[in-house]
Amino acid sequence: MAENRMMSLAALIRARDEGNADPKLMVALSRDAIARNDAVIKAFAHLPAEPVIGTEGPLAGVAIGIKDIFDTFDQPTTYGSPAYEGHRPRVDAAIVDLARRRGATIIGKTVSTEFAFLNPAVTVNPHNHAHTPGGSSSGSAAAIAAGMIPAALGTQTGGSVIRPASFCGIAGYKPSYRLLPISGIKHFAPSLDTVGLFAASVADVALLAALLTGRDLGAGPDEQPSDRQKIRVGLYRCALLEGADPEMRAALTKAADMAANAGFDVGEIGEPEAMALARDAHANIQNYEAGLACGPDLALYRNQMSQLLAGTIERGQAISPEAYDEARKFAKRGRVATRALFGEVDILLTPSAPGAAPHGLETTGDPRFNKLWTLMGTPAISIPGFSDEAGLPLGIQAVARFGRDKALLSVAAALEQAFKA
Amino acid sequence: MAENRMMSLAALIRARDEGNADPKLMVALSRDAIARNDAVIKAFAHLPAEPVIGTEGPLAGVAIGIKDIFDTFDQPTTYGSPAYEGHRPRVDAAIVDLARRRGATIIGKTVSTEFAFLNPAVTVNPHNHAHTPGGSSSGSAAAIAAGMIPAALGTQTGGSVIRPASFCGIAGYKPSYRLLPISGIKHFAPSLDTVGLFAASVADVALLAALLTGRDLGAGPDEQPSDRQKIRVGLYRCALLEGADPEMRAALTKAADMAANAGFDVGEIGEPEAMALARDAHANIQNYEAGLACGPDLALYRNQMSQLLAGTIERGQAISPEAYDEARKFAKRGRVATRALFGEVDILLTPSAPGAAPHGLETTGDPRFNKLWTLMGTPAISIPGFSDEAGLPLGIQAVARFGRDKALLSVAAALEQAFKA
Repeated sequence: MAENRMMSLAALIRARDEGNADPKLMVALSRDAIARNDAVIKAFAHLPAEPVIGTEGPLAGVAIGIKDIFDTFDQPTTYGSPAYEGHRPRVDAAIVDLARRRGATIIGKTVSTEFAFLNPAVTVNPHNHAHTPGGSSSGSAAAIAAGMIPAALGTQTGGSVIRPASFCGIAGYKPSYRLLPISGIKHFAPSLDTVGLFAASVADVALLAALLTGRDLGAGPDEQPSDRQKIRVGLYRCALLEGADPEMRAALTKAADMAANAGFDVGEIGEPEAMALARDAHANIQNYEAGLACGPDLALYRNQMSQLLAGTIERGQAISPEAYDEARKFAKRGRVATRALFGEVDILLTPSAPGAAPHGLETTGDPRFNKLWTLMGTPAISIPGFSDEAGLPLGIQAVARFGRDKALLSVAAALEQAFKA
Repeated sequence: MAENRMMSLAALIRARDEGNADPKLMVALSRDAIARNDAVIKAFAHLPAEPVIGTEGPLAGVAIGIKDIFDTFDQPTTYGSPAYEGHRPRVDAAIVDLARRRGATIIGKTVSTEFAFLNPAVTVNPHNHAHTPGGSSSGSAAAIAAGMIPAALGTQTGGSVIRPASFCGIAGYKPSYRLLPISGIKHFAPSLDTVGLFAASVADVALLAALLTGRDLGAGPDEQPSDRQKIRVGLYRCALLEGADPEMRAALTKAADMAANAGFDVGEIGEPEAMALARDAHANIQNYEAGLACGPDLALYRNQMSQLLAGTIERGQAISPEAYDEARKFAKRGRVATRALFGEVDILLTPSAPGAAPHGLETTGDPRFNKLWTLMGTPAISIPGFSDEAGLPLGIQAVARFGRDKALLSVAAALEQAFKA
């Protein structure tokens, strides 16, 4: 099982703080694991010969993988596209610079699909190499799952953090919109593009978020939600659920039962129509914005693009401003309905994906369970712990109200413990 | 007077559509005017030897100046900073590509202050060369005012569109947040950075916006607001007004009188406290975000930065997440108050700047009348037509509810006519 060989960020940092692990040694662990595994997993797009090892700051010694959609001034940045082969941005993306300022070591660039869209890349799923790791943050998720690194950055425009986390059996956290700075990524749809984090466990991803941002995200072992009866957890009965795989539906039901056993106030909650309509509006918003944001690339590099990407940008450019405005109206109504829903419930539980990672590398899987939350800007996390009969991971997605990242992370950490027990 | 020699976009397009002006001739007019004037005005940071002349599309033949904060793949892009001397981005900014797709000719890059912040650049005010043209979109505003080009792009994070438009006696339009795509600019504070447009008149800037976006922005000569008695125009009595120059205060009063004479329902309206508090929150939001967005530049290019810029980024990095969240709370409350205010009034009138362009090039002037509207995301426009005793222009700023760009532009066009009469 991949899970057993994953690197625990919390354990590494504890060892460092107790004087039992030197930052250089911590990074060397990752370099070793990468050397042993990446020829098969293909999670990395670039590995520097001599990474600059951070030795000061809260992330000193932490090797972090950077999705190759983020600019790095000292490593090539291809955005997953042959058009950008060998491209060297002048400066880092804001979050990369922030990670360096906190002491992190930029261990390498992880594989992104082309422009972080749907065209699959080369990375394989560490749990079964014949399956996709998901996308578009394929390399970041696989590198964690294969135990090569303790922390990684990704982005989500549709389902590119939560879905690969689910397929790879790790924790993937998409914070509230703009909690993490976005400058210096290759934008696809700016009103949706969101920076996310990956680590082996919910506890680790929460720790990573706290150390990166300097925010109190309260997911330490002593900070778990105490008065669980007052925390309302709702199994989200959206219409999509019927189309999910039976094993995923069973996992979700089991997750809700375990949450109840762990002391939370668990119930079921239906999907307001305005939220279903908002989900349907995601495509027009995404594609209209991609028509603008990626128009400059289409103009110069069309013949170095997949037909899937080029066609999507072209179709986006054909969407009228009126149709875009109409879609944004549905999104706005959806946000009003989402706020109202989070008056009735604190945490929603829903599948991270329709099922386990599909066989083959021809698709990165389906983001249908993720698009709504990206559009709503609400924080979401994929909690690992379940698997299907073949042993492939199934993630449970927890979602909270915009800005309630701390509550989400602390409840998700408690649920992760409950799923393990 | 600079005004008399300005290029009318509407007249150029009319001539083109009637077969009286070839796109190449239209561009040649601008090239000539630039050759005659720019040695003194210094509005351009770069002029290509042979610009690619667009001959198809609604903006065919329109020479557009691009603030040097937008990426252009075929012209150097310096962001107003010596650190980026000779920088060539791989692709255009989204709005530059959009302008090209509409047929516009990228006539050159206009001077931006360093990173579009407050450190002054070399451009002079065409109305009096001893005065600043304002900033940060200094070159775009001056190039229009000097009659060199009919259209230009700028950006506003504090007051960088409305203020230079006011100082230069032209129309500057800051649309609703994200009406125009932002990808491919050098970000300073992403939640504030807004693309804006410049032209000689309100009618021109509305036409430019409509042709660029394909939106019905309804500012054609036949589309002026008909039922003016139903349009409530409010002179905005914010506390700042007392600190404005007497000539600006007189111009604002006169503007309100003229609006009433033109048939609008004119009154006065006070500033809700929540909006004053939101204005005060602008600095922490801007500087915290600049600490992140420009952190990568500080890390590599500190010794090529002005102390003003470097110090602002450093101070931004020292702002705590809690202080930033607190500032965002004030912004949110301000938005609620702004929406409520626009239930009582359709258009607010307020100075575009405290007074006329300051003497000297040591400062680009004061954005205090602009910051609130940037933070609120509401559309704003500087309407030309007034001047002080020395003949320096004074702009009147009109503001409307978020998303009501069409209403703003049509009322502002009518007011512009009224101011002339």
